[in-house]
Order: sequence, then structure tokens, then C-alpha cells
Amino acid sequence: MAARQGSKRAARGGGRAGRLEARAAEQASGERTAGYRLIRNPYPPMEIFSADQIETIHQTALEVLAEIGIKVLLPEARHMYRKAGAEVDETDGKVRFPPGMIEPILAMAPREFTLHARNPERSLEIGGANVAFCTVGGPPNVSDMDRGRRPGSLADLNDFVRLAHFFDVIHIMAAAVEPLDVEMPFRHLEIARAYLLYSDKPFFVYSRGRGWIADSLEMIRLSRGVEWSQFETEPSCYTVVNMNSPLQLDVPMGEGIIDMARAGQPTVVTPFTLAGAMAPITIPGALVQQHAEAMAGLALAQLVRPGAPVVYGGFTSNVDMRSGAPAFGTPEYAQAAAAGGQLARRLALPYRSSNVNASNAPDAQAAYESQMSLWGALMGGCNWLLHGAGWLEGGLTASFEKLIMDVEMLQMMAEFFRPPQVSKATLGLDAMREVGPGGHFFGAAHTIERYDRAFYGPVLSDWRNFETWRDSGSVDATRRANRLWKEALAAYQEPAMEETVRDQLGDFIERRKSEGGVEVY
Amino acid sequence: MAARQGSKRAARGGGRAGRLEARAAEQASGERTAGYRLIRNPYPPMEIFSADQIETIHQTALEVLAEIGIKVLLPEARHMYRKAGAEVDETDGKVRFPPGMIEPILAMAPREFTLHARNPERSLEIGGANVAFCTVGGPPNVSDMDRGRRPGSLADLNDFVRLAHFFDVIHIMAAAVEPLDVEMPFRHLEIARAYLLYSDKPFFVYSRGRGWIADSLEMIRLSRGVEWSQFETEPSCYTVVNMNSPLQLDVPMGEGIIDMARAGQPTVVTPFTLAGAMAPITIPGALVQQHAEAMAGLALAQLVRPGAPVVYGGFTSNVDMRSGAPAFGTPEYAQAAAAGGQLARRLALPYRSSNVNASNAPDAQAAYESQMSLWGALMGGCNWLLHGAGWLEGGLTASFEKLIMDVEMLQMMAEFFRPPQVSKATLGLDAMREVGPGGHFFGAAHTIERYDRAFYGPVLSDWRNFETWRDSGSVDATRRANRLWKEALAAYQEPAMEETVRDQLGDFIERRKSEGGVEVY
Repeated sequence: MAARQGSKRAARGGGRAGRLEARAAEQASGERTAGYRLIRNPYPPMEIFSADQIETIHQTALEVLAEIGIKVLLPEARHMYRKAGAEVDETDGKVRFPPGMIEPILAMAPREFTLHARNPERSLEIGGANVAFCTVGGPPNVSDMDRGRRPGSLADLNDFVRLAHFFDVIHIMAAAVEPLDVEMPFRHLEIARAYLLYSDKPFFVYSRGRGWIADSLEMIRLSRGVEWSQFETEPSCYTVVNMNSPLQLDVPMGEGIIDMARAGQPTVVTPFTLAGAMAPITIPGALVQQHAEAMAGLALAQLVRPGAPVVYGGFTSNVDMRSGAPAFGTPEYAQAAAAGGQLARRLALPYRSSNVNASNAPDAQAAYESQMSLWGALMGGCNWLLHGAGWLEGGLTASFEKLIMDVEMLQMMAEFFRPPQVSKATLGLDAMREVGPGGHFFGAAHTIERYDRAFYGPVLSDWRNFETWRDSGSVDATRRANRLWKEALAAYQEPAMEETVRDQLGDFIERRKSEGGVEVY
Repeated sequence: MAARQGSKRAARGGGRAGRLEARAAEQASGERTAGYRLIRNPYPPMEIFSADQIETIHQTALEVLAEIGIKVLLPEARHMYRKAGAEVDETDGKVRFPPGMIEPILAMAPREFTLHARNPERSLEIGGANVAFCTVGGPPNVSDMDRGRRPGSLADLNDFVRLAHFFDVIHIMAAAVEPLDVEMPFRHLEIARAYLLYSDKPFFVYSRGRGWIADSLEMIRLSRGVEWSQFETEPSCYTVVNMNSPLQLDVPMGEGIIDMARAGQPTVVTPFTLAGAMAPITIPGALVQQHAEAMAGLALAQLVRPGAPVVYGGFTSNVDMRSGAPAFGTPEYAQAAAAGGQLARRLALPYRSSNVNASNAPDAQAAYESQMSLWGALMGGCNWLLHGAGWLEGGLTASFEKLIMDVEMLQMMAEFFRPPQVSKATLGLDAMREVGPGGHFFGAAHTIERYDRAFYGPVLSDWRNFETWRDSGSVDATRRANRLWKEALAAYQEPAMEETVRDQLGDFIERRKSEGGVEVY
């Protein structure tokens, strides 16, 4: 709290520009000085379904696994499932899980784990009441108001990393935008370089083949300066495995689970269950399928390495049945996001959900759909919020303006997660005595003692009166966000890295490039 | 449900314009056909504070009432408090409530009541798990993208009433914009005329003096075609009494409570407790003051008429301590909105909260601040959401575009309040059997049976892909809202009113005008 108050006091100094400068000074120190490093959700998770209904969904998912099964395309994975007791049909690749098989396997997974960053000050606890916010991951496009929408590039990725590093409310990195200007065999090297040089927060490894994963893990290990024996006991990055819904696990995803679990690294297993398209059109049906698919993927990690860190991912949303287009941040999404938390807790696993929307612009729709996602996910007990900042257009675009909007929204949620203390001092009876009926509290001693750190100070919101706002150009939130990400980039400072580590990483990249890089799916 | 599905099916017919036409056809029928007439919140309210903490706030508020007291400017009100056992200081107007006095008085208030509309199909239950959405109330200004921001007029009010009537998600009317072009002695007559002619939903009466209230009640009684003896047992409108925080009740507000209670009509008692300005700078302190002020006002209604319908109002927010400007939709607001529900339930009373924001434009800030307000209020157990649609700029402006954004957000919340049924049919096991691994659900029988009513269909959100959206002009949500309110106004149809009632109202207005209208504070 002392650190938080210090940083908030600094942040209140001189308006928005002053806040960004104060933030930059904190960043340069490399210490855990700011207010939003670690977040805990103090509220009991909301429940969309009764315990009985959750049990029905869980049991029906087990029925799906026993009767219909999962089509597993990777022979190595089928082999592992068979060894553990599954019925495997090698003609069609279907793996069926007899009753009683899967739950003891899942019980080996840890409830919580530490995610290590190369800067220990940025390591995080995953699971329990902890909440970690992550950037958008995966968009092929990038957009901002100055340059419009365009295919992603390494320069864009670098800037996204810098911004995501700059804002303390973002804890974890995903691959915020695809650097399409880097050839596939070498792309993983440049992605890892961007994250390791421009940030010291934990980041993401794509499941795009064994070489991609191996190289990425080696770079992350080098950046942490630890031996393999230590690395494989300390989660230091993560992959996301999207089940190929319905009921299918493809080759690179199967390899991702296996290789990450072997290295002791976390897999976030997230079925891609869009109700009406890749899953039943009913939310309970889509959740049954999500749960069945998730359990199958999560179990594979445990078969590879009992106790491997895993995260239960939920991504159930609905499609627009008129067009088939995916919709996000809908009422159904909010219900499914909260219900996903109930299902994850049924398995005693950390829960991943997402801050998503289907808007084509960083506008009011993007904001209210994101808020629906945020509240559904976070009140539902989400531990790991993927796509937390920058997601636009159903995930097809990483937006710089949306990143700023999301930083504001995430900071507001982080602050909402700090319920006020109730004490003699905060109950304010003395202040009411001092002021009395008809007075005002601006000058009260109780106010003076607290005014500079009493309330959340926004990054993006403009609370000036209408006339002042109009006379300064009637700049709306989206255009303010456009200014802010450029100011933040200007204020950004690169985190420290030891020269020897920097050299090791450079040498590794050069060597792997000279060797021709990797084969990618 | 059958009615709902029918309307939703119609609503899915032909895109946005088709939905508005279908809505207009439903409206013309005057029946309760649409999906959002009555809303119940099925989820347990979230709790910001523990039961012990709520009890501490409650007891501290009682201490405030006993020791500091409330300054009551209306002698008639002081007299009533004194008769009931309060200590009244006639030199400074302070009323102090001895320990044990106020709770038995508040226990006389009903937990729930019916709010009658002139069209019985639009009557509502207030309290319990019921949720009613109300328009913005009180702004002196109005704005839209075509005409900009300007002082409110009767023409603007009429249009706001038409729009609020058009959208079924809005249950209750407030005075959405002040008709500044109508002279004060006659303004109440034109406001009541607008609401009675252009809508048949329950509406609001300002506490602006005894004549204003008496005339308004008479017009509402005439519109319902009932005798006074029936009218005074049937809540048919409401007033909002803002305590003049800190700890003060002025003359018109005191008269409002008294006259409405005498007529058996509900008062929503809402202290105006902006933390740091009119209340202590801490949220618990502001809540103590809110609770003390609310209890004093609510008790007055019970002293006038035991059992008078009342609503506990919470409006605690914070100010920007740099500028003194009120902030809304902040994290602190969301906490206070949810905590207000806990305090209202402590008194076993219906709870009023608000959908507010401090943005100067109907932009992304307006959307995310509104969402923070909505989730805090509604998950906190709000029964009556004032300022639900159209509030902008801290309440200084009623915005036509924001009205549309709010309709979308309220409809989304209404849909969120319908948790999916869990049944054999919705669990979708047969659909998964039919589709199997790697297939898709678009053509499954389970999908075909449900596709036209499976999901919420938005009014404002645009889910088309980026290219289609761009090629049709890259119209953002705010500009779409601008189109939509004009389309809705064009599709609007006036609700039926018997000719005799219309004549009675017209005659009454003419008579009161010829008599010179009323004196107004």
C-alpha cells in the first residue's frame, strides 16, 4: 500500500502528461513500485448456474468423452492416452475416455503456480484469487488512427510490446500482433527477441511446431540465466492450445501440450466453442463441449508430466446466426465467461477467460462489449485474462487506441477489486461533525489528509466540464487514446538486461538463423 | 416466454430496419408482447462489504442522526419529526433522532409495491428481485449529432418521451430533459401532457412545490380514470427527493415527501453524496452519510402515512479532487452502487441506483463509465435504475445518441439476467453425436430448431466483417446511434388514449393555465 500510495501521489502531480512521466520514472527503476502489479479479486465469484447444474454439465461432458470421444491427430498423443486407459480407434483417430479415467488424471494438476518473469519483480501467482491481465494475442492485422488497418509487422509488434511493458496493469504478454514481414522459419526468434528486449514480463510461445517451441524455450531460459534443471521446475512462459472444436486436437496443438509439459511450462487449454458454429447453439451445450475438450487437453499435459502447470480456458461465445460471424461481449458471452469459472473451479484449476468484442473500430461498441466481457469473466473468477488489452474486430486486429481504452478499463477493474477499508477513520464521523449540515468537505481535515490519493485517477477519461472540453477541441475518447499511446511510447524506457545475456540471445538468434530456422505448421 | 420468442423471431427478420419495424408493430398493438417488459435479476446480489461492515455503517449512520442530526428547513416536517420523538432545535432547524426511534418507523414501509401505469400492461412490481429501467431525468440541456448541444425544449422532451416509449427495455419515465421554452407556472402541465400523450408508461413528478405536485397527480389520476380513493392506494407515479447533502432537507423536498406520501405515491429518497465535496472523501464515510440522510427522508414519508411506498436511493460517487468536478462510473462509484444495495436491504426497502457517466460525448468513455455503473448497480441488487438511458455529461445533458447506446446496454443486461436453462435439450448431447469431431453445427437439427431465437439480437452493435463495414462507410457506433434514434422516431406510434380522457386532460390544462398555473421554487 505504501508503494501504491507513493506512486499514485506521483501520478496525480501534473495531469495526464505528468502521470505518464511519473510512470516512466517508475519503469526506469525496474522495481515493483506501481499500483497494479498484483491483483486479487476479493469478491466471491458470481454463479450463473447452480452447483447441481454445473455437476450436470460436468457429467454430460464426461459422457461426451466416454461415448463420442475426441479425434486426436497426433499419434504420440494417442499413444499416451491409450497407455493411461483410453480406448483408441487408430482407423479414425478417436480417443474415448472410459468413466472414471479422466478425473484422477486432472487431480494431479496444481491449483496454483508461479509464473516466473526474467525480472523476478514481475513474476506472478496464477490461480486462487489472483488475477493477471494479458495483452491481446494473435491478430494478423494492426490498426491505429494515423495509419489505418494494415497487416502486422515487426515494428508494430515492437511498439505493442513497449506499450504493454509500459502499463503496469498488464502483467503478461501474448503475441500481440503477427510480424508478417518476418519469414516463418525465423519469426519465432524475432518475436522472442522483441519480448525479451523490450519487456521483462512473462510472455507467450506459439504451438507452431517442435522447433518453434524448443528455440523459444531456450531463449527464455537464457534470459532468466538459469539451468534447464531449474527452468523445467519454474513456469516461465506459456502456450495457448485451442482445441479444434468440435472435439478435435490437431498435430501442432498436441505437440504444444506435450513439449510444454515436458519442459514444465504451462499450457492454457482453450476450446474454440462458438455456439451455433463449432459447438451446439445452446450455451449449456457449448459449455458441455468446452468442458469435454478442455478436460481431454488438460489430461494430456498430466500424462506427459504429472503436476504440469495448466490453465482451464473458456472461450465460449455465440455467432450471429444471420451471417455466421462470431459475436463477442454478448450477454451469452458474459454468461459463458462466468460459467466457465464455475467449471474450472469444479476441476480445481486456474481459469482463463478473455476481454473481447466484435467491433470494427475502437468506439463505443468496442467499449461496451469489452465491459460485458470483463465483468462476466472477472466476476466469474477469471485468474488469467487473455486478450486483455488491444483486441479489436473479433481478434483480427490489434488496435493501439483500443490498447489504451483497455488499460483504462483494466485499471478501473483493478481498483474495483480494492474494497474500501471500513474503520473509524474511513467512516468519517469526525468529518461530518466538523462540516455539519449544509457545509462542504473540500476544506475538512479529513479531506486534506487524503485528497491526493483518495480516488482512482484515470488515464483516458476526461472529466473536465463541457465548455472546457469543447473549447479545447471536443476530442473524444478514441482520439484521446490516439494521443496517449504515442505519448506513452515516447515516455517508454527499455528495461535493463545484462550485457552477457543480451549477447547470448543475439548469438543464439544468429546461430539459429544460419542453421535455417525452423519448420512451421 | 412464448410471447418473447415470438417477438424475437419477428425481430430477427430483416436486419436493423426490420427489427425497428417489427418493434413498431408490437407497439401499435399496445400489448405486452415484447421481450423486456418485466425483468428479474436471478443472481444473488454481490457484496462489497461484509455483513459486519454493513452493520457498522448502519450503526454509524444512526449515530449521525442521533448526535449531529439533519437540518430540516420545512416547519411542517420538523413538527412531524418532533411528534414522533425527535429532538428539534427550532433555532437552527436541526432534528436529532434518539437511538431506537427511526428503525421502527422505517419498518412500516413496504418491501415491494406495484407501480401502476395508465396502461395496466405497463404496470410494474418494484422491489424484491425485480429490476426496472428508467430514462435519464433532469438535464437542462439536450444534444444530438445533428443539432449539437442546446438548452432543452418541449419539442426535445416530446421526442425523448416518444423514444423512451418506443423501446420496451425502458419501463419508467423520468423528466428526460427540461423544457426550458415553457414558462415555469405552466411547465408541469406540459411535461405531464407529453408523458401522458406520447407514452403509457409510469412517470415522474418533480418536487417543485405543492401546486406542481397537486396538478401533476390530478392529471395522472385522470389518465388512469380512477377515483382519488383508489388512486391513493395505488402508486401511479413517483418523485425523487435529493437530500441537500450534507445532512439537510430543504423546503420543496420536504413538501415533496409529505405531499406524495399523503397521496399514497412513492418517493425515491436519494442523498446527493459526492465523496470529497458534499460527503466525506472516503466511500465508507460517504455511505454513512447517504444512509443517515436516506433514513431521515424515508422516515418522514412513514410519519405522514404509515406504509407509504418509498425507495432507498443511493447516488454516492466521487469528485475529481484536482478540479472538484463530479466523476461517475468510476471504480468507487461501482463499489458504492453495489454497497447501496446492501444498505437498502438492511432496511428491507427497494433500491434505486443509476446508470451514469461523466463523458462530454456519447463516445467510448460514455460507454465504459456507463457499464461500470450498470454492473455495480445491477449486480448490487438495484431494483430501479434511474438515468438508465440518455444521461451524458454528469447529467447536464440528455443525449439522443446516448439513449440508443443505453437501450443496447440495458437490453444486454436484461438478457444477461436470463440464465440459460439446463435440460436434456439444451445440453446438446444429441447435437454433438450428430456433428461429431471436426464437423460444424450450422446444419444440425438442434441448430435449425433454434437458430432464429437462440441469441440476443443487437440494436446498435455492428457485427459485419471489417471489409463490409468499411465499404459501407466505416460508420462507428455513435454515428449509427444517430441514425437509429431518427429511424425509431419515424417508426414510433402514439399509444391509444380514450377520447374522453384526452378531453379531460386538455380541459384541465386549459383551466389551470387560465388560472395562472402554479408557483414554483
